[in-house]
Amino acid sequence: MTHPLLSRVPAFAILAAVAACSDLRPKPVAPQAVTSLPEILENSPAQDWRTPDPGDTLYMDLPSGRVVIELAPLYAPRHADNIRALVREGYFDGLAIERVQDNFVTQWGDADGKRAIGSASRTLASEFTRPLDGDLGAFTPLGSGDVYAPLVGFTAGFPVARDTRTKSTWLLHCYGMVGAGRDNDVNSGNGAELYAVIGHAPRQIDRNAALVGRVLQGMELLSSLPRGTGALGFYEKPEQRIPIVRMRVAADVPAAERTTIEVLRTDSPTFRAVIEQRRNRRDAWYKVPAGAVDVCNVPIPVRAIH
Amino acid sequence: MTHPLLSRVPAFAILAAVAACSDLRPKPVAPQAVTSLPEILENSPAQDWRTPDPGDTLYMDLPSGRVVIELAPLYAPRHADNIRALVREGYFDGLAIERVQDNFVTQWGDADGKRAIGSASRTLASEFTRPLDGDLGAFTPLGSGDVYAPLVGFTAGFPVARDTRTKSTWLLHCYGMVGAGRDNDVNSGNGAELYAVIGHAPRQIDRNAALVGRVLQGMELLSSLPRGTGALGFYEKPEQRIPIVRMRVAADVPAAERTTIEVLRTDSPTFRAVIEQRRNRRDAWYKVPAGAVDVCNVPIPVRAIH
Repeated sequence: MTHPLLSRVPAFAILAAVAACSDLRPKPVAPQAVTSLPEILENSPAQDWRTPDPGDTLYMDLPSGRVVIELAPLYAPRHADNIRALVREGYFDGLAIERVQDNFVTQWGDADGKRAIGSASRTLASEFTRPLDGDLGAFTPLGSGDVYAPLVGFTAGFPVARDTRTKSTWLLHCYGMVGAGRDNDVNSGNGAELYAVIGHAPRQIDRNAALVGRVLQGMELLSSLPRGTGALGFYEKPEQRIPIVRMRVAADVPAAERTTIEVLRTDSPTFRAVIEQRRNRRDAWYKVPAGAVDVCNVPIPVRAIH
Repeated sequence: MTHPLLSRVPAFAILAAVAACSDLRPKPVAPQAVTSLPEILENSPAQDWRTPDPGDTLYMDLPSGRVVIELAPLYAPRHADNIRALVREGYFDGLAIERVQDNFVTQWGDADGKRAIGSASRTLASEFTRPLDGDLGAFTPLGSGDVYAPLVGFTAGFPVARDTRTKSTWLLHCYGMVGAGRDNDVNSGNGAELYAVIGHAPRQIDRNAALVGRVLQGMELLSSLPRGTGALGFYEKPEQRIPIVRMRVAADVPAAERTTIEVLRTDSPTFRAVIEQRRNRRDAWYKVPAGAVDVCNVPIPVRAIH
């Protein structure tokens, strides 16, 4: 046996419509037409993909490369505005990644508390949830249950929960999501300290912090950093920190220097096929398709455009 | 604001008995006596902790330090026996970590397929589930729902699922769990290729691979490695691999060289308090306790003994 490996070669999928599912338990699924995830993506029509708005896209340039983040102004408009303002006044340039806590978050900002904020706001009213009203755009239900919320799915490229009882919706702390740190006061965050989830989804933070976006590219630059050995995973010595060369809004970057990528629309037929493919893996390696999928186990595909 | 951070300072917990919960939706919990996680652990009686059996404990020594793994012979007895045999014949010594796939697994073994297996078995009958019979020891139910299984909780220090309909039980692919790679044939694994989960729990693999144990210490040495850029996260160049200095069974190591740790018993009152603390975070930072917890978000505490 030369390579007994845990195969992650793309599997076969059921191309079936997603049905909202009130029973959270897995159930058997009858095999139908199947195809692999790369095939799903390769055969997708152009209109199922979108170019992220350069005004909502951030580049964080590290010595190791570029992290591309898409903001979520639909869910955190005040934070999105303030983070753009902070980025544009050069707030993050020369600051650093100061905290990497294993199976939790990588966090960056002003570790020494010496950087002055210019025109951006120092505090913001919290944006932990938003009203479930008409201007949210399409919601694609996951079609499987959830431990933390009554209903989960995807809106505008992000994993979200909905609660029709409280008429509210919120972003979810899945791997790669970016949030704004705060002190104990719910209104103390301003986007000047940001974190990205690098471990098992800490869903207990949902509705307790403002999620502001998602890492589209360069996640491995944040997840593979040495873990901090101080309390909460902070680096104990300033020289251990990873410097932020600069952060920019993509719209402010000359076209030739932009990272050209597309994101699969979460309200597209192709994305619904991706969900089904992840709910029931049917390639030769898998013997027992799960029949259910965790909302944080559905990838939201990103592709490079050349 | 000097340190607007995402607090992970331990919270307050409800010291209540865990009740099996058939409704998977979060529900309000009335505050009762509360305490923090460090307080729960500090005030725990000695009998709530156990020393892992040195015969079931593996040390994987890397240039960066030691990874301590506890085998799960209750769930994968054939794999545990074979891995001990492989370790004792020096099979892993000088082999390497060959694959690090972001948000998935770190895998080690014989990347070049040149290492001969001596007295250990080359193939094993699969151990993906085991019968739900009498000799399993205590089961501590999580008391919250699960997306992938009808009932989840903890047995003998590991996260597990139970299905009374099929009368079976199995280990769960939570962060830090260790499994045996295999080819497409379900009986092709032998423990000579091992992987550890380094991202969001890939629960779709449950019942599709033999989980063999859990990383008790040194997880950060596996999770912070550079991601491989080849297919499936394999390192493309041999020089990128991380060498395994040696693997040993703790029982074969002189007492003075052993890593002395204790693990909280998952059938103890203290562990039930930990579950409740994680289900409803009540320190000053958290404003909305979740009322539910994912089985993979409950830490199984390990402490150093000096």
